[in-house]
Amino acid sequence: MLHAIQDAYARIKSDLYPTPLIRSYHLEPYFGCAVYLKLENLQRTGAFKMRGALNKFSVLSDDAIKGGMVAASSGNHGRAIAYVCKSKGVPCTIVMPQTAPPIKVANILALGADVVQCPTENRFKVAAQVAEERGAIVVPPFDDNDVMIGQGTIGLELMEQAPELTHILVPVGGGGLVGGIAAAVKGLSDHTKVYGVEPEILPRYTESLKAGKPVAVPQNHSIADALASQQPGDVNFPVVQNYVDGMLTVSETAIQKAHKLMITEGKIFCEASSSIGLGAVLEEKITFTATDRVCLVISGGNLSLDQLSSLIDIEI
Amino acid sequence: MLHAIQDAYARIKSDLYPTPLIRSYHLEPYFGCAVYLKLENLQRTGAFKMRGALNKFSVLSDDAIKGGMVAASSGNHGRAIAYVCKSKGVPCTIVMPQTAPPIKVANILALGADVVQCPTENRFKVAAQVAEERGAIVVPPFDDNDVMIGQGTIGLELMEQAPELTHILVPVGGGGLVGGIAAAVKGLSDHTKVYGVEPEILPRYTESLKAGKPVAVPQNHSIADALASQQPGDVNFPVVQNYVDGMLTVSETAIQKAHKLMITEGKIFCEASSSIGLGAVLEEKITFTATDRVCLVISGGNLSLDQLSSLIDIEI
Repeated sequence: MLHAIQDAYARIKSDLYPTPLIRSYHLEPYFGCAVYLKLENLQRTGAFKMRGALNKFSVLSDDAIKGGMVAASSGNHGRAIAYVCKSKGVPCTIVMPQTAPPIKVANILALGADVVQCPTENRFKVAAQVAEERGAIVVPPFDDNDVMIGQGTIGLELMEQAPELTHILVPVGGGGLVGGIAAAVKGLSDHTKVYGVEPEILPRYTESLKAGKPVAVPQNHSIADALASQQPGDVNFPVVQNYVDGMLTVSETAIQKAHKLMITEGKIFCEASSSIGLGAVLEEKITFTATDRVCLVISGGNLSLDQLSSLIDIEI
Repeated sequence: MLHAIQDAYARIKSDLYPTPLIRSYHLEPYFGCAVYLKLENLQRTGAFKMRGALNKFSVLSDDAIKGGMVAASSGNHGRAIAYVCKSKGVPCTIVMPQTAPPIKVANILALGADVVQCPTENRFKVAAQVAEERGAIVVPPFDDNDVMIGQGTIGLELMEQAPELTHILVPVGGGGLVGGIAAAVKGLSDHTKVYGVEPEILPRYTESLKAGKPVAVPQNHSIADALASQQPGDVNFPVVQNYVDGMLTVSETAIQKAHKLMITEGKIFCEASSSIGLGAVLEEKITFTATDRVCLVISGGNLSLDQLSSLIDIEI
């Protein structure tokens, strides 16, 4: 899979923003070792999802996309698809959970896409209906090989920016991001462990890895709104099973504390979902030795200031 | 002055965090050219002030500092001095304006320093009194050659990280930061312009440069709380006069808009003071051509989430 990711990178690199990997000295007391942040909140459209969207479009002909695109998305995938559709001049409809933050809806509408909102658990069914009605193609947010391969380009950049990394902690929703990154990193490094981190109230990968196959968990709403999937993608699951070193779960309380800490101490404006790796460290779901070099993937930064109000009184 | 800054850097470099210079693609539409952010909010104690503090201590003997230190500060200088005093094991008192944000007071108390609060315009007088009573040395926040030289080390790093910069916009309080940076940059580059940016309601440099000497302006309270000085430092003024290419003023409204934009679009958690350069651009106090490469100095990140509440309803 490494070669497919390298080929994808050659196709999409010029349309990506090169995102920095910065050392976060302020967060190091919590880890007891060197900490790095991969700032995908600085990616075009404010999240890593641009990578998968660009790669999907790079393998489709102009004829295939002329009827437009439909995506079911908690927000960031939708914004990326809407951006590419606008740049290609094709119609776009994004199907979003009714619980999506208003800023994510607004960002997508601003790109000229239609937005349909529905209950979280119906979003893939609604997307398929809309696609059929409009003669459009559905671009899945994670359960698609081209999308996962696009997200994997982050792994290539990390191994270029800091080949000495010992651990990479990746937020997990459907598994496109962690699967892609792990496949790239494991193809390039024999000393870098890749961990997925998911909300404790949505433990679809933890449960599925135990069961040895994708299983669904109840649709709970996590404050890590970008990690809403009820079950692993069929395409992603075997890749995660094969390449990922471990899966950690984090309580809602720890995600919230980590979110506050990432902003006020890390000085990085990012989504709750992006702080989940830090949450795992706060809860001691993983510990490090002084010579480790840990990277947190900061997956997105599409949030509004009013979303921080609930963090003001959180004690760290 | 360049050589003095280079000597200072050799003394203090190992105690500094190396702060990144990142490209900010998301802010570029407002500038029409390449934009870079120097992230001094990631500096030790969360602000550039650590540089001046470390340099001041590096030229004082253990005997000279044994009675302890006193500093008048709107917060960030005080935190830096308190940090160094703690590491040296000497007593520390910080005199702060009664309008200082509570988080800045709390950060200083957490370092074991005493805090005295008084009206902004009395803070230097009170600091001198406290120093006399306690047999301590006063470390001025800007009006001191060693302090200004310490801040100037940012200029060395910028010319190392991005010698191609055409403009550097620097927040201005008493002038230690802009004076130091300009002296370093002008000694190393013949194509980089350095601009100071100050609140329109505290135009001490704009007025002083017109008058040809330091003059005081009325003590207004700007939302850029770190830029509280009523008049240029006597030590800083001639350096600014000599090396700085221009001085811009920014309205409180534009500072607030820029602050919101820096956080929500720039994805950087920083103080209102750090956004003042962006405010100057929003108000078209300076404009750029497409080939320019502009750096904003993000001077500090010591703020609490409740300080953002007033930004929620600001329209950008």
